[in-house]
Amino acid sequence: VSNDSLNLREVREFLESFAVERDWVKYHTPKNLAMALAAEAGELVEIFQWMTPGESSELGDAETRRAVGEELADVLQYLIRLADVLDLDLEQVLWEKLRVNEDRFPV
Amino acid sequence: VSNDSLNLREVREFLESFAVERDWVKYHTPKNLAMALAAEAGELVEIFQWMTPGESSELGDAETRRAVGEELADVLQYLIRLADVLDLDLEQVLWEKLRVNEDRFPV
Amino acid sequence: VSNDSLNLREVREFLESFAVERDWVKYHTPKNLAMALAAEAGELVEIFQWMTPGESSELGDAETRRAVGEELADVLQYLIRLADVLDLDLEQVLWEKLRVNEDRFPV
Amino acid sequence: VSNDSLNLREVREFLESFAVERDWVKYHTPKNLAMALAAEAGELVEIFQWMTPGESSELGDAETRRAVGEELADVLQYLIRLADVLDLDLEQVLWEKLRVNEDRFPV
Repeated sequence: VSNDSLNLREVREFLESFAVERDWVKYHTPKNLAMALAAEAGELVEIFQWMTPGESSELGDAETRRAVGEELADVLQYLIRLADVLDLDLEQVLWEKLRVNEDRFPV
Repeated sequence: VSNDSLNLREVREFLESFAVERDWVKYHTPKNLAMALAAEAGELVEIFQWMTPGESSELGDAETRRAVGEELADVLQYLIRLADVLDLDLEQVLWEKLRVNEDRFPV
Repeated sequence: VSNDSLNLREVREFLESFAVERDWVKYHTPKNLAMALAAEAGELVEIFQWMTPGESSELGDAETRRAVGEELADVLQYLIRLADVLDLDLEQVLWEKLRVNEDRFPV
Repeated sequence: VSNDSLNLREVREFLESFAVERDWVKYHTPKNLAMALAAEAGELVEIFQWMTPGESSELGDAETRRAVGEELADVLQYLIRLADVLDLDLEQVLWEKLRVNEDRFPV
Protein backbone atom coordinates (compact mmCIF):
# COMPACT_ATOMS: atom_id res chain seq x y z
CA VAL A 1 0.00 0.00 0.00
CA SER A 2 1.58 3.25 -1.12
CA ASN A 3 1.37 6.51 0.77
CA ASP A 4 -1.41 7.47 -1.58
CA SER A 5 -3.77 4.85 -0.26
CA LEU A 6 -5.75 5.24 2.88
CA ASN A 7 -6.16 1.90 4.62
CA LEU A 8 -9.79 2.23 5.59
CA ARG A 9 -9.92 -1.10 7.36
CA GLU A 10 -7.10 -0.07 9.66
CA VAL A 11 -8.83 3.23 10.49
CA ARG A 12 -12.20 1.53 11.02
CA GLU A 13 -10.66 -0.98 13.38
CA PHE A 14 -8.82 1.73 15.29
CA LEU A 15 -11.99 3.81 15.64
CA GLU A 16 -14.10 0.86 16.71
CA SER A 17 -11.58 -0.21 19.36
CA PHE A 18 -11.27 3.39 20.50
CA ALA A 19 -15.03 3.56 21.04
CA VAL A 20 -15.29 0.12 22.65
CA GLU A 21 -12.48 0.79 25.12
CA ARG A 22 -14.10 4.03 26.26
CA ASP A 23 -17.64 2.61 26.34
CA TRP A 24 -18.62 5.13 23.67
CA VAL A 25 -20.30 2.72 21.26
CA LYS A 26 -23.69 3.63 22.72
CA TYR A 27 -23.12 7.23 21.63
CA HIS A 28 -22.13 6.28 18.09
CA THR A 29 -25.55 6.17 16.49
CA PRO A 30 -25.62 7.41 12.89
CA LYS A 31 -27.63 10.42 14.03
CA ASN A 32 -25.02 11.41 16.61
CA LEU A 33 -22.09 10.77 14.28
CA ALA A 34 -23.72 12.92 11.58
CA MET A 35 -23.99 15.72 14.16
CA ALA A 36 -20.36 15.29 15.18
CA LEU A 37 -19.27 15.42 11.54
CA ALA A 38 -21.30 18.61 10.99
CA ALA A 39 -19.82 20.20 14.12
CA GLU A 40 -16.32 19.51 12.80
CA ALA A 41 -17.30 20.90 9.40
CA GLY A 42 -18.35 24.05 11.27
CA GLU A 43 -14.90 24.31 12.84
CA LEU A 44 -13.33 23.94 9.42
CA VAL A 45 -15.51 26.73 8.01
CA GLU A 46 -14.65 28.94 10.97
CA ILE A 47 -10.96 28.87 10.04
CA PHE A 48 -11.73 30.35 6.64
CA GLN A 49 -14.66 32.62 7.43
CA TRP A 50 -12.92 35.99 7.37
CA MET A 51 -10.25 35.14 4.78
CA THR A 52 -10.36 36.34 1.22
CA PRO A 53 -10.31 33.46 -1.27
CA GLY A 54 -6.72 34.42 -2.07
CA GLU A 55 -5.67 34.28 1.57
CA SER A 56 -7.30 30.87 1.88
CA SER A 57 -5.25 29.61 -1.07
CA GLU A 58 -1.96 30.79 0.31
CA LEU A 59 -2.50 29.84 3.94
CA GLY A 60 1.00 31.01 4.62
CA ASP A 61 1.16 30.40 8.28
CA ALA A 62 2.05 26.97 9.58
CA GLU A 63 -0.30 27.20 12.54
CA THR A 64 -3.33 27.68 10.28
CA ARG A 65 -2.29 24.85 7.96
CA ARG A 66 -1.99 22.58 10.98
CA ALA A 67 -5.44 23.65 12.21
CA VAL A 68 -6.99 22.88 8.82
CA GLY A 69 -5.33 19.49 8.79
CA GLU A 70 -6.76 18.72 12.21
CA GLU A 71 -10.28 19.67 11.20
CA LEU A 72 -10.04 17.62 8.02
CA ALA A 73 -8.88 14.69 10.15
CA ASP A 74 -11.83 15.14 12.51
CA VAL A 75 -14.35 15.25 9.68
CA LEU A 76 -12.74 12.21 8.09
CA GLN A 77 -12.74 10.11 11.24
CA TYR A 78 -16.45 10.71 11.81
CA LEU A 79 -17.11 10.04 8.14
CA ILE A 80 -15.31 6.69 8.28
CA ARG A 81 -16.94 5.76 11.60
CA LEU A 82 -20.42 6.67 10.32
CA ALA A 83 -19.94 4.61 7.16
CA ASP A 84 -18.78 1.74 9.35
CA VAL A 85 -21.73 1.70 11.75
CA LEU A 86 -24.07 1.80 8.73
CA ASP A 87 -22.02 -0.84 6.93
CA LEU A 88 -21.63 1.39 3.89
CA ASP A 89 -18.65 0.84 1.60
CA LEU A 90 -17.07 4.29 1.36
CA GLU A 91 -14.98 3.59 -1.68
CA GLN A 92 -17.99 2.22 -3.54
CA VAL A 93 -20.35 5.08 -2.67
CA LEU A 94 -17.64 7.61 -3.52
CA TRP A 95 -17.02 6.24 -7.00
CA GLU A 96 -20.71 5.78 -7.67
CA LYS A 97 -21.28 9.44 -6.85
CA LEU A 98 -18.33 10.58 -8.94
CA ARG A 99 -19.75 8.67 -11.92
CA VAL A 100 -23.15 10.28 -11.34
CA ASN A 101 -21.47 13.68 -11.32
CA GLU A 102 -19.82 12.96 -14.67
CA ASP A 103 -23.25 12.44 -16.19
CA ARG A 104 -24.77 15.37 -14.36
CA PHE A 105 -22.13 17.88 -15.37
CA PRO A 106 -21.01 17.06 -18.91
CA VAL A 107 -17.84 18.78 -20.09
CA VAL B 1 -4.49 -2.93 -2.61
CA SER B 2 -7.47 -4.60 -1.05
CA ASN B 3 -11.02 -3.35 -1.27
CA ASP B 4 -10.46 -1.82 2.14
CA SER B 5 -8.06 0.74 0.84
CA LEU B 6 -9.11 3.97 -0.71
CA ASN B 7 -6.77 4.97 -3.49
CA LEU B 8 -6.52 8.67 -2.67
CA ARG B 9 -4.26 9.44 -5.59
CA GLU B 10 -6.79 8.06 -8.04
CA VAL B 11 -9.57 10.15 -6.47
CA ARG B 12 -7.42 13.28 -6.35
CA GLU B 13 -6.52 12.91 -10.02
CA PHE B 14 -10.15 12.31 -10.97
CA LEU B 15 -11.30 15.37 -9.05
CA GLU B 16 -8.57 17.59 -10.44
CA SER B 17 -9.32 16.55 -14.03
CA PHE B 18 -13.02 16.99 -13.37
CA ALA B 19 -12.42 20.57 -12.24
CA VAL B 20 -9.95 21.38 -15.02
CA GLU B 21 -12.23 20.08 -17.77
CA ARG B 22 -15.13 22.20 -16.54
CA ASP B 23 -12.99 25.29 -15.87
CA TRP B 24 -13.92 25.04 -12.18
CA VAL B 25 -10.40 25.28 -10.75
CA LYS B 26 -10.92 29.00 -10.14
CA TYR B 27 -13.82 28.15 -7.82
CA HIS B 28 -11.85 25.60 -5.85
CA THR B 29 -10.23 27.87 -3.29
CA PRO B 30 -9.89 26.31 0.17
CA LYS B 31 -12.49 28.76 1.46
CA ASN B 32 -15.04 27.72 -1.14
CA LEU B 33 -14.31 24.01 -0.75
CA ALA B 34 -14.73 24.28 3.03
CA MET B 35 -18.15 25.87 2.40
CA ALA B 36 -19.10 23.11 -0.03
CA LEU B 37 -18.06 20.47 2.49
CA ALA B 38 -20.15 22.16 5.20
CA ALA B 39 -23.15 22.40 2.90
CA GLU B 40 -22.94 18.66 2.23
CA ALA B 41 -22.57 18.00 5.97
CA GLY B 42 -25.81 19.96 6.38
CA GLU B 43 -27.53 17.67 3.88
CA LEU B 44 -26.28 14.67 5.81
CA VAL B 45 -27.63 16.06 9.07
CA GLU B 46 -30.97 16.80 7.42
CA ILE B 47 -31.50 13.11 6.69
CA PHE B 48 -31.26 12.27 10.37
CA GLN B 49 -32.83 15.34 11.96
CA TRP B 50 -36.22 13.94 12.89
CA MET B 51 -35.15 10.33 13.50
CA THR B 52 -34.77 8.84 16.94
CA PRO B 53 -31.26 7.49 17.53
CA GLY B 54 -32.72 3.98 17.21
CA GLU B 55 -34.30 4.75 13.85
CA SER B 56 -31.00 6.17 12.65
CA SER B 57 -29.24 2.91 13.58
CA GLU B 58 -31.69 0.70 11.75
CA LEU B 59 -32.13 2.84 8.65
CA GLY B 60 -34.33 0.14 7.28
CA ASP B 61 -35.26 1.66 4.03
CA ALA B 62 -32.96 1.30 1.05
CA GLU B 63 -33.74 4.77 -0.25
CA THR B 64 -32.49 6.42 2.95
CA ARG B 65 -29.36 4.28 3.05
CA ARG B 66 -28.62 5.30 -0.51
CA ALA B 67 -29.16 8.97 0.37
CA VAL B 68 -26.75 8.73 3.31
CA GLY B 69 -24.16 7.08 1.10
CA GLU B 70 -24.46 9.90 -1.42
CA GLU B 71 -24.00 12.59 1.20
CA LEU B 72 -20.99 10.79 2.67
CA ALA B 73 -19.55 10.62 -0.83
CA ASP B 74 -20.12 14.33 -1.34
CA VAL B 75 -18.45 15.24 1.94
CA LEU B 76 -15.56 12.92 1.14
CA GLN B 77 -14.94 14.28 -2.32
CA TYR B 78 -14.74 17.87 -1.04
CA LEU B 79 -12.53 16.72 1.81
CA ILE B 80 -10.10 15.02 -0.58
CA ARG B 81 -10.16 17.96 -2.99
CA LEU B 82 -9.56 20.47 -0.20
CA ALA B 83 -6.63 18.48 1.17
CA ASP B 84 -5.25 18.33 -2.37
CA VAL B 85 -5.41 22.06 -3.13
CA LEU B 86 -3.70 22.72 0.22
CA ASP B 87 -1.19 19.93 -0.39
CA LEU B 88 -2.07 18.28 2.91
CA ASP B 89 -1.45 14.55 3.30
CA LEU B 90 -4.80 13.22 4.48
CA GLU B 91 -3.52 9.91 5.75
CA GLN B 92 -0.83 11.63 7.77
CA VAL B 93 -3.08 14.26 9.33
CA LEU B 94 -5.67 11.61 10.13
CA TRP B 95 -3.26 9.37 12.01
CA GLU B 96 -1.63 12.29 13.77
CA LYS B 97 -5.04 13.34 15.06
CA LEU B 98 -5.99 9.82 16.08
CA ARG B 99 -2.77 9.59 18.11
CA VAL B 100 -3.54 12.95 19.73
CA ASN B 101 -6.99 11.64 20.64
CA GLU B 102 -5.45 8.60 22.30
CA ASP B 103 -3.51 10.88 24.63
CA ARG B 104 -6.44 13.23 25.14
CA PHE B 105 -8.93 10.55 26.09
CA PRO B 106 -7.12 7.88 28.08
CA VAL B 107 -8.99 4.61 28.56
CA VAL C 1 -44.69 47.90 17.37
CA SER C 2 -42.84 49.28 14.39
CA ASN C 3 -41.80 47.29 11.39
CA ASP C 4 -38.39 47.09 12.96
CA SER C 5 -39.55 44.93 15.80
CA LEU C 6 -40.00 41.23 15.50
CA ASN C 7 -42.89 40.04 17.61
CA LEU C 8 -41.29 36.93 19.04
CA ARG C 9 -44.36 35.91 21.00
CA GLU C 10 -46.46 35.87 17.85
CA VAL C 11 -43.89 33.72 16.04
CA ARG C 12 -43.49 31.37 19.00
CA GLU C 13 -47.24 30.87 19.22
CA PHE C 14 -47.50 30.28 15.48
CA LEU C 15 -44.71 27.73 15.55
CA GLU C 16 -46.07 25.92 18.56
CA SER C 17 -49.56 25.67 17.05
CA PHE C 18 -48.03 24.57 13.78
CA ALA C 19 -46.24 21.72 15.54
CA VAL C 20 -49.21 20.76 17.71
CA GLU C 21 -51.63 20.63 14.79
CA ARG C 22 -49.33 18.32 12.83
CA ASP C 23 -48.42 16.17 15.84
CA TRP C 24 -44.80 17.24 15.41
CA VAL C 25 -44.13 18.25 19.01
CA LYS C 26 -42.57 14.87 19.67
CA TYR C 27 -39.95 15.62 17.01
CA HIS C 28 -39.11 19.03 18.42
CA THR C 29 -36.49 18.05 20.97
CA PRO C 30 -33.67 20.57 21.33
CA LYS C 31 -31.31 18.04 19.77
CA ASN C 32 -33.47 17.67 16.68
CA LEU C 33 -34.14 21.39 16.35
CA ALA C 34 -30.41 22.12 16.57
CA MET C 35 -29.89 19.67 13.72
CA ALA C 36 -32.65 21.29 11.67
CA LEU C 37 -31.11 24.71 12.24
CA ALA C 38 -27.69 23.42 11.14
CA ALA C 39 -29.17 21.83 8.04
CA GLU C 40 -30.74 25.16 7.07
CA ALA C 41 -27.44 26.92 7.75
CA GLY C 42 -25.91 24.45 5.31
CA GLU C 43 -28.42 25.44 2.65
CA LEU C 44 -27.58 29.09 3.26
CA VAL C 45 -23.87 28.41 2.84
CA GLU C 46 -24.54 26.45 -0.33
CA ILE C 47 -26.01 29.53 -2.00
CA PHE C 48 -22.77 31.44 -1.50
CA GLN C 49 -20.21 28.68 -1.88
CA TRP C 50 -18.92 29.43 -5.36
CA MET C 51 -19.44 33.20 -5.29
CA THR C 52 -16.61 35.67 -4.88
CA PRO C 53 -17.12 37.93 -1.87
CA GLY C 54 -17.97 40.76 -4.29
CA GLU C 55 -20.62 38.68 -6.05
CA SER C 56 -22.14 37.82 -2.68
CA SER C 57 -22.39 41.53 -1.84
CA GLU C 58 -24.14 42.45 -5.04
CA LEU C 59 -26.47 39.48 -5.29
CA GLY C 60 -27.94 41.07 -8.35
CA ASP C 61 -30.45 38.49 -9.25
CA ALA C 62 -33.84 38.49 -7.59
CA GLU C 63 -34.09 34.72 -7.51
CA THR C 64 -30.92 34.41 -5.42
CA ARG C 65 -32.02 37.18 -3.04
CA ARG C 66 -35.30 35.37 -2.54
CA ALA C 67 -33.48 32.10 -1.87
CA VAL C 68 -31.27 33.76 0.74
CA GLY C 69 -34.34 35.27 2.41
CA GLU C 70 -35.97 31.85 2.59
CA GLU C 71 -32.93 30.23 4.17
CA LEU C 72 -32.62 33.03 6.70
CA ALA C 73 -36.30 32.53 7.52
CA ASP C 74 -35.76 28.81 7.99
CA VAL C 75 -32.79 29.31 10.29
CA LEU C 76 -34.73 31.92 12.25
CA GLN C 77 -37.81 29.80 12.73
CA TYR C 78 -35.80 26.90 14.14
CA LEU C 79 -33.84 29.32 16.30
CA ILE C 80 -37.03 30.79 17.78
CA ARG C 81 -38.59 27.36 18.23
CA LEU C 82 -35.47 25.97 19.92
CA ALA C 83 -35.28 28.90 22.32
CA ASP C 84 -38.97 28.35 23.06
CA VAL C 85 -38.76 24.64 23.89
CA LEU C 86 -35.80 25.40 26.16
CA ASP C 87 -37.58 28.41 27.66
CA LEU C 88 -34.65 30.68 26.82
CA ASP C 89 -35.30 34.41 26.39
CA LEU C 90 -33.80 35.17 22.99
CA GLU C 91 -33.65 38.91 23.43
CA GLN C 92 -31.91 38.55 26.78
CA VAL C 93 -29.32 36.01 25.62
CA LEU C 94 -28.64 38.08 22.51
CA TRP C 95 -27.92 41.29 24.41
CA GLU C 96 -25.89 39.46 27.04
CA LYS C 97 -23.69 38.03 24.29
CA LEU C 98 -23.36 41.38 22.54
CA ARG C 99 -22.19 42.95 25.82
CA VAL C 100 -19.69 40.13 26.28
CA ASN C 101 -18.40 40.77 22.76
CA GLU C 102 -17.87 44.46 23.58
CA ASP C 103 -15.55 43.44 26.40
CA ARG C 104 -13.89 40.72 24.38
CA PHE C 105 -13.11 42.88 21.38
CA PRO C 106 -12.25 46.39 22.62
CA VAL C 107 -12.17 49.11 19.97
CA VAL D 1 -42.64 47.18 22.96
CA SER D 2 -43.06 44.25 25.30
CA ASN D 3 -40.33 41.89 26.34
CA ASP D 4 -41.65 39.59 23.68
CA SER D 5 -40.54 41.82 20.88
CA LEU D 6 -37.05 41.90 19.56
CA ASN D 7 -36.09 45.39 18.47
CA LEU D 8 -34.31 44.49 15.25
CA ARG D 9 -33.40 48.06 14.44
CA GLU D 10 -31.57 48.44 17.73
CA VAL D 11 -29.64 45.21 17.16
CA ARG D 12 -28.84 46.12 13.55
CA GLU D 13 -27.51 49.51 14.61
CA PHE D 14 -25.46 47.97 17.42
CA LEU D 15 -23.95 45.41 15.06
CA GLU D 16 -23.19 47.94 12.37
CA SER D 17 -21.47 50.30 14.82
CA PHE D 18 -19.61 47.36 16.31
CA ALA D 19 -18.25 46.47 12.87
CA VAL D 20 -17.48 50.04 11.87
CA GLU D 21 -15.59 50.82 15.08
CA ARG D 22 -13.38 47.76 14.65
CA ASP D 23 -12.89 48.24 10.90
CA TRP D 24 -14.60 44.90 10.31
CA VAL D 25 -17.09 46.05 7.68
CA LYS D 26 -14.77 44.82 4.95
CA TYR D 27 -15.07 41.29 6.37
CA HIS D 28 -18.85 41.38 6.52
CA THR D 29 -19.65 40.22 3.03
CA PRO D 30 -22.76 38.01 2.80
CA LYS D 31 -20.52 35.08 1.93
CA ASN D 32 -18.41 35.52 5.05
CA LEU D 33 -21.40 36.13 7.31
CA ALA D 34 -23.09 32.98 6.01
CA MET D 35 -19.93 31.07 6.93
CA ALA D 36 -19.84 32.62 10.39
CA LEU D 37 -23.48 31.71 10.93
CA ALA D 38 -22.81 28.12 9.86
CA ALA D 39 -19.78 27.89 12.15
CA GLU D 40 -21.94 28.99 15.08
CA ALA D 41 -24.62 26.48 14.07
CA GLY D 42 -21.89 23.86 14.24
CA GLU D 43 -21.06 24.89 17.81
CA LEU D 44 -24.73 24.61 18.70
CA VAL D 45 -24.93 21.11 17.25
CA GLU D 46 -21.77 20.12 19.12
CA ILE D 47 -23.46 20.79 22.45
CA PHE D 48 -26.18 18.26 21.67
CA GLN D 49 -24.26 15.69 19.66
CA TRP D 50 -23.87 12.96 22.27
CA MET D 51 -27.11 13.62 24.19
CA THR D 52 -30.17 11.45 23.91
CA PRO D 53 -33.23 13.42 22.79
CA GLY D 54 -34.53 13.16 26.36
CA GLU D 55 -31.34 14.60 27.82
CA SER D 56 -31.52 17.45 25.35
CA SER D 57 -35.04 18.28 26.51
CA GLU D 58 -34.16 18.36 30.17
CA LEU D 59 -30.82 20.14 29.88
CA GLY D 60 -30.60 20.06 33.62
CA ASP D 61 -27.35 21.74 34.11
CA ALA D 62 -27.13 25.52 34.16
CA GLU D 63 -23.79 25.59 32.42
CA THR D 64 -25.15 23.78 29.37
CA ARG D 65 -28.25 25.99 29.21
CA ARG D 66 -25.99 29.03 29.27
CA ALA D 67 -23.84 27.56 26.50
CA VAL D 68 -26.91 26.93 24.33
CA GLY D 69 -28.10 30.48 24.92
CA GLU D 70 -24.74 31.83 23.82
CA GLU D 71 -24.71 29.82 20.62
CA LEU D 72 -28.27 30.87 19.79
CA ALA D 73 -27.20 34.47 20.35
CA ASP D 74 -24.24 34.02 18.03
CA VAL D 75 -26.35 32.51 15.28
CA LEU D 76 -28.92 35.26 15.71
CA GLN D 77 -26.45 38.10 15.55
CA TYR D 78 -24.97 36.84 12.29
CA LEU D 79 -28.45 36.24 10.93
CA ILE D 80 -29.51 39.82 11.70
CA ARG D 81 -26.25 41.25 10.36
CA LEU D 82 -26.50 39.21 7.15
CA ALA D 83 -30.07 40.31 6.56
CA ASP D 84 -28.93 43.88 7.14
CA VAL D 85 -26.04 43.90 4.68
CA LEU D 86 -28.36 42.39 2.07
CA ASP D 87 -31.15 44.80 2.98
CA LEU D 88 -33.57 41.96 3.56
CA ASP D 89 -36.53 42.52 5.91
CA LEU D 90 -36.25 39.62 8.35
CA GLU D 91 -39.75 39.90 9.70
CA GLN D 92 -41.20 39.90 6.21
CA VAL D 93 -39.18 36.95 4.91
CA LEU D 94 -39.96 35.01 8.08
CA TRP D 95 -43.72 35.40 7.78
CA GLU D 96 -43.66 34.74 4.05
CA LYS D 97 -41.89 31.46 4.69
CA LEU D 98 -44.24 30.51 7.52
CA ARG D 99 -47.19 31.09 5.19
CA VAL D 100 -45.55 28.96 2.53
CA ASN D 101 -45.06 26.21 5.10
CA GLU D 102 -48.77 26.31 5.97
CA ASP D 103 -49.57 25.51 2.36
CA ARG D 104 -46.82 22.97 2.03
CA PHE D 105 -47.74 20.98 5.11
CA PRO D 106 -51.54 20.97 5.42
CA VAL D 107 -52.92 19.80 8.76
